[in-house]
Amino acid sequence: MKLARIGEAGREIPVVVAEDHYLDLSPLTHDIDGAFLAGGLDRVADAVAAGSLARVEAAGQRLGAPIARPSAVICVGMNYAAHAAESGAAPPEDLVVFLKTPNTVTGPDDDVTIPPGSTKTDWEVELGVVIGRRASYLGSPADALAHIAGYTLVNDLSEREWQIERSGGQWSKGKSFPGFSPVGPWLVTADEVDPRALRLRSWVNGSPRQDSSTADMIFDVAQIVRRLSQFLVLEPGDLVMTGTPEGVALSGRFPYLSPGDVVEVEIDGLGRQRQVTR
Amino acid sequence: MKLARIGEAGREIPVVVAEDHYLDLSPLTHDIDGAFLAGGLDRVADAVAAGSLARVEAAGQRLGAPIARPSAVICVGMNYAAHAAESGAAPPEDLVVFLKTPNTVTGPDDDVTIPPGSTKTDWEVELGVVIGRRASYLGSPADALAHIAGYTLVNDLSEREWQIERSGGQWSKGKSFPGFSPVGPWLVTADEVDPRALRLRSWVNGSPRQDSSTADMIFDVAQIVRRLSQFLVLEPGDLVMTGTPEGVALSGRFPYLSPGDVVEVEIDGLGRQRQVTR
Repeated sequence: MKLARIGEAGREIPVVVAEDHYLDLSPLTHDIDGAFLAGGLDRVADAVAAGSLARVEAAGQRLGAPIARPSAVICVGMNYAAHAAESGAAPPEDLVVFLKTPNTVTGPDDDVTIPPGSTKTDWEVELGVVIGRRASYLGSPADALAHIAGYTLVNDLSEREWQIERSGGQWSKGKSFPGFSPVGPWLVTADEVDPRALRLRSWVNGSPRQDSSTADMIFDVAQIVRRLSQFLVLEPGDLVMTGTPEGVALSGRFPYLSPGDVVEVEIDGLGRQRQVTR
Repeated sequence: MKLARIGEAGREIPVVVAEDHYLDLSPLTHDIDGAFLAGGLDRVADAVAAGSLARVEAAGQRLGAPIARPSAVICVGMNYAAHAAESGAAPPEDLVVFLKTPNTVTGPDDDVTIPPGSTKTDWEVELGVVIGRRASYLGSPADALAHIAGYTLVNDLSEREWQIERSGGQWSKGKSFPGFSPVGPWLVTADEVDPRALRLRSWVNGSPRQDSSTADMIFDVAQIVRRLSQFLVLEPGDLVMTGTPEGVALSGRFPYLSPGDVVEVEIDGLGRQRQVTR
């Protein structure tokens, strides 16, 4: 199943994505949050099968992030060897982890505000993992996969001056500007996604930037979730960003974002985002 | 006013702290959360003055954190020059910022679990700032102070191997183990606290460790909140940890924590915490 949240920012309603329309999930849950993901997905499948959900027209609807604000947004850095190299770093021997504030999460096609004075705002297409069950000290990669509700597309926007030059080395500072985590369009449930070899791409003004595969991750999704659970507790509804491949502006190969640019990111099977910067 | 949350973990009720008892805040709010802090404090003062809140006996009550789970826990690192020196770092020229997952927040006297295999679990007494109004791009230190609901005591527990040796340099990894953010006992409202020269101390098994003053901060509370607001949005109810002074185990002057140790931290006017490690 593909789930989404549609409507005005802060007032989104949960829906199931059907071929050319949506089905209103409101009778089953007020939101696509941790409590729902921890126990409500079976009821959705039943309701869809029973035809009991009201149809909502897709046209003209704003898409919100497909999940409610998470309790944490946990990011893995330097998880593609070629991106580590373009950033001037060696591939890490263990997960590199930082956090973004959860209020950065926004809709997949919302405008992106370049922070005041910023000349180094950058894109990062990433596979997002949404947690379905509380995860602590997981024993195996298979156990880790069983704690995942689904997958989504994210753009881990980054301001490199604040992340690197003005940070004392702690990256969160350049990662948490307002609107810096477009998520969606959909949460695709884990039963429909094999995260091991998904093509992920980005474009700026129609020109290709990133084009890689999750097969190139240093730590795969199951390893990420298992390892994270050794030093923090993942809550249902939490969002894990799994790192970005090469092809960002930090490499020096492309200019940073300017007002009026169009950023697009896509992962096969998880949809596409389009943001206009301002 | 002093506010607290009492009762079993996850089922705390909000109270006002009176001389030898509590006053039940439940009729006014279900929790001490962002929505309440953004608009409800005046009603508490009115209700206390009117004598309309029911008395609750203090004896035998567990204290929870005095605030509901925040949307973000934002930490300033290396904010006391002598602590930067004992950590092997120069004093920073700008805020060093990292995040802890909000689910680390726990009661001030709850037992602390030393992570499996850890030999480098450390204490850090810190002044905690609780945000009262949404704060973004604040213009002045005075404006920053007007966005603070109150102050609390925190122990920013840290696992130094995961924070430093196994992290690739990103500190959050050693900061987010379960129960690693004891908060409280109280939230003391901003009108009753001058944060500029508060003595803050810690002890392990009764022996002194840290003993300093918030006057030694490199960036004071008003500067911290103003500067944070330049690169992220602070939400009502968010918790900002303002850094720790010298006297932690990382210095090499004291042993790290072992099971059965008793850790105490205190800030004048904000109360005292006592944790037994296990």
